[in-house]
Amino acid sequence: MAKENAKGQKFVEAITDMEVDFAKWYTDIVKKAELIDYSGVRGCFILRPYGYAIWEQIKSEFDARFKATGHENVYFPMFIPESLLQKEKDHVEGFAPEVAWVTHGGDEELTERMCVRPTSETLFCDHFANVIQSHRDLPKLYNQWCSVVRWEKSTRPFLRGREFLWQEGHTAHATAEEALQEALDILEIYTDVCENILGMPVIKGKKTDKEKFAGAKETYTFENMMHDGQALQSGTTHNFGDGFARAFGIQYTDKENKLSYVHQSSWGISTRLIGGIIMTHGDNSGLVLPPRLAPIQIAIIPIAQHKEGVLDFARGLKERLSNFRVKLDDSDRSPGWKFSEYEMKGVPLRIEIGPKDIEAGQCVLVRRDTREKTIIALGSLETAIAETLEDIQKALFNKALKNREDRTYVAHSLEEMKEQLDTKPGFVKAMWCGELACENKVKEVATATSRCIPFEQERVGETCFCCGGEAKHMVIWGRAY
Amino acid sequence: MAKENAKGQKFVEAITDMEVDFAKWYTDIVKKAELIDYSGVRGCFILRPYGYAIWEQIKSEFDARFKATGHENVYFPMFIPESLLQKEKDHVEGFAPEVAWVTHGGDEELTERMCVRPTSETLFCDHFANVIQSHRDLPKLYNQWCSVVRWEKSTRPFLRGREFLWQEGHTAHATAEEALQEALDILEIYTDVCENILGMPVIKGKKTDKEKFAGAKETYTFENMMHDGQALQSGTTHNFGDGFARAFGIQYTDKENKLSYVHQSSWGISTRLIGGIIMTHGDNSGLVLPPRLAPIQIAIIPIAQHKEGVLDFARGLKERLSNFRVKLDDSDRSPGWKFSEYEMKGVPLRIEIGPKDIEAGQCVLVRRDTREKTIIALGSLETAIAETLEDIQKALFNKALKNREDRTYVAHSLEEMKEQLDTKPGFVKAMWCGELACENKVKEVATATSRCIPFEQERVGETCFCCGGEAKHMVIWGRAY
Repeated sequence: MAKENAKGQKFVEAITDMEVDFAKWYTDIVKKAELIDYSGVRGCFILRPYGYAIWEQIKSEFDARFKATGHENVYFPMFIPESLLQKEKDHVEGFAPEVAWVTHGGDEELTERMCVRPTSETLFCDHFANVIQSHRDLPKLYNQWCSVVRWEKSTRPFLRGREFLWQEGHTAHATAEEALQEALDILEIYTDVCENILGMPVIKGKKTDKEKFAGAKETYTFENMMHDGQALQSGTTHNFGDGFARAFGIQYTDKENKLSYVHQSSWGISTRLIGGIIMTHGDNSGLVLPPRLAPIQIAIIPIAQHKEGVLDFARGLKERLSNFRVKLDDSDRSPGWKFSEYEMKGVPLRIEIGPKDIEAGQCVLVRRDTREKTIIALGSLETAIAETLEDIQKALFNKALKNREDRTYVAHSLEEMKEQLDTKPGFVKAMWCGELACENKVKEVATATSRCIPFEQERVGETCFCCGGEAKHMVIWGRAY
Repeated sequence: MAKENAKGQKFVEAITDMEVDFAKWYTDIVKKAELIDYSGVRGCFILRPYGYAIWEQIKSEFDARFKATGHENVYFPMFIPESLLQKEKDHVEGFAPEVAWVTHGGDEELTERMCVRPTSETLFCDHFANVIQSHRDLPKLYNQWCSVVRWEKSTRPFLRGREFLWQEGHTAHATAEEALQEALDILEIYTDVCENILGMPVIKGKKTDKEKFAGAKETYTFENMMHDGQALQSGTTHNFGDGFARAFGIQYTDKENKLSYVHQSSWGISTRLIGGIIMTHGDNSGLVLPPRLAPIQIAIIPIAQHKEGVLDFARGLKERLSNFRVKLDDSDRSPGWKFSEYEMKGVPLRIEIGPKDIEAGQCVLVRRDTREKTIIALGSLETAIAETLEDIQKALFNKALKNREDRTYVAHSLEEMKEQLDTKPGFVKAMWCGELACENKVKEVATATSRCIPFEQERVGETCFCCGGEAKHMVIWGRAY
């Protein structure tokens, strides 16, 4: 993957510059940081150990927060009988065109074909109808970690796979207010992890009717801007009201012994977030990971490791730093190769330690984000590391925030928006009348979609930027992955 | 699920006695302890929160041990193209009859149908051939947690599902010795968790050629005896030698720059273990969980909770016991209902605390396994709990071990074995000549299969108990789930 030059400095081979070809830069990182390998089925990707380790970090952050707020993990089957998928009309219309169908078990043709879950609302509803009888059975706050299948035409690692890993929350509540509150509360958990662990600033808002989930009353979203100015919808939460409950007959007896329909929510984030991390923080040397997320926070690289005492010292250092996630690379590769390797993998900090450092009671600390080198006295190493890791975490967030601010515009006409997006893609704020006709026209003319109606509304104009009619909402528009 | 009588004692409704109908007793527990619900697809079961929580406990025990021994988690796609499945001859013969086939993506028929993985050797081999070039790339020690699909005719919750959760390890090594050692090392990890966490005594051994995994050189197994004397094959590890490597062309250059085939292993345990736990420890009041495994170790039941101070005191107790996994049930159900509920769920310890206890500075501790009640001074509560939990853990193991010893026989003839298994099923030790003909005859006449050739060999006879020929191994035979 990497050649080294005489001075052992980084010399990365064959990674495309992001300014030259952002899409190729992205897939280069995905391959060279050993996150993903392609499988024999197009659009189904192999998550290699390092890619999966990042997912495990993301999972553990979310899972702890879900459990702390009373949610329980479950596992539902991957197969949905065709008749079950068809119970909620809008829902089946949204998903049927892109599901994979199982028609045979062994040598026998099935009497009813089954799809591999594209999402599991129908299965959860079917179960809820079985197990919910009384108000005592509510709320049900369920979540599952699994994979789903969507047979899409065009695919990209992490961003759009025919099979991908995700979590899907499914909840049932006694009242409409509780279901809505759940959708909003989970959005807060999502954005907490996204901003404070993944270092990605979010815009929270509501999807327009056109963009909402198939079968939902309202869909809430958090949108991120990638380094190239394109948008990423990183996760969504849905309030279903009692729509699914009516389709599936999910009723409970309340305290007055009256029968009522439950109100429901669902919500999900996926491995797509890893694509977001790459495109938010990565640079021309590879991946850059925020320290709170990084599976390896510190790579220790021994210098002149064949000299007596160096490897032992490095091992002692690793032991000493066991409060951090540390990898000591004592392989027979050269230091220069190792520098490139851990830069490519986005490890936030590198420690270089050689015979002279040991003699001087110091080591060299190198930041991945700025490449800044500092000589640190070993006595104050833990403090220096802790401070630097926190500093990197903040710096990455601030850099991403600045990129978003630099690339956020206001448009007062469709032509203005088109020019903004053609010349330097980003988020465009514009007032909207609320009509589907205008939303469609924006897509046609400016090839942009409504990202969301942000919770934080501003009045950036007096009339709909598209038709000139009465302005209802300020909307964030953009081109999205 | 449970009615209460006037004295608030347990009164479980509709759970079949295990002595009356062991199979029905089993499914009663599975339903009434809320481990599983049936889904719309026969043989595909829903793991409800309590069932999944047990699986999460099992997972975390194994996962920690895999990682501590250098294994890395990955995720491979669920779909295997038909041509890939067919690359290793024995393997495809073993699995093709029971796979589910995907033939359509959306409206389009696929050019090549794909099966949903019944196991992933072929996918891992395909990837290994891509990423292994040099001895530096070895060993590869991979594991994944996922579900697999086997379209079986008859199914039972946990024991035999058309879809079930498991882990599958897949490793590649430079030498034959290393691959064999891996299969043996993992068997030790499996039996460690099985005996010391799940409280289930194991017999370790090698499968006969007839019973080994499709494509394996050797299969190692750990076998458990259930309460009714039937055997459960709880997990297996396989040494593949270089068979798959030759079929898939997985070669590496060694230190002398010579091309060699890798040697491989694979290994798996599944949610089947939960079935084993039920049938090893359960009784006529429901599930019994070993304390080290139990998602809830202690249920706190307030008595007369409407009286002032009781609930506050109970909450304080829960707080105080945060080193244990504690559930306080402050719902408006009666104490009697709660007693039955947590007995059904197999919670190892119950604490009863009421106004009189609070006044006297004590509480009542009730063991799930023996139902023994003890009054404990609150001052020594933590010590008493820790000791009792350890005592339950040991008692459950010893009880299961005694059952196995009581039900282990020696047979010198096929007729003797048949009578033993017909009258009181168990394990039968008998000497075997090593011939398939005898193994088939045992199955035909005594409807028993070879469970394993145990590592701990004894000489329980002079000749093969079936044909009278030269005895090669002592084999454990039994009827299995």
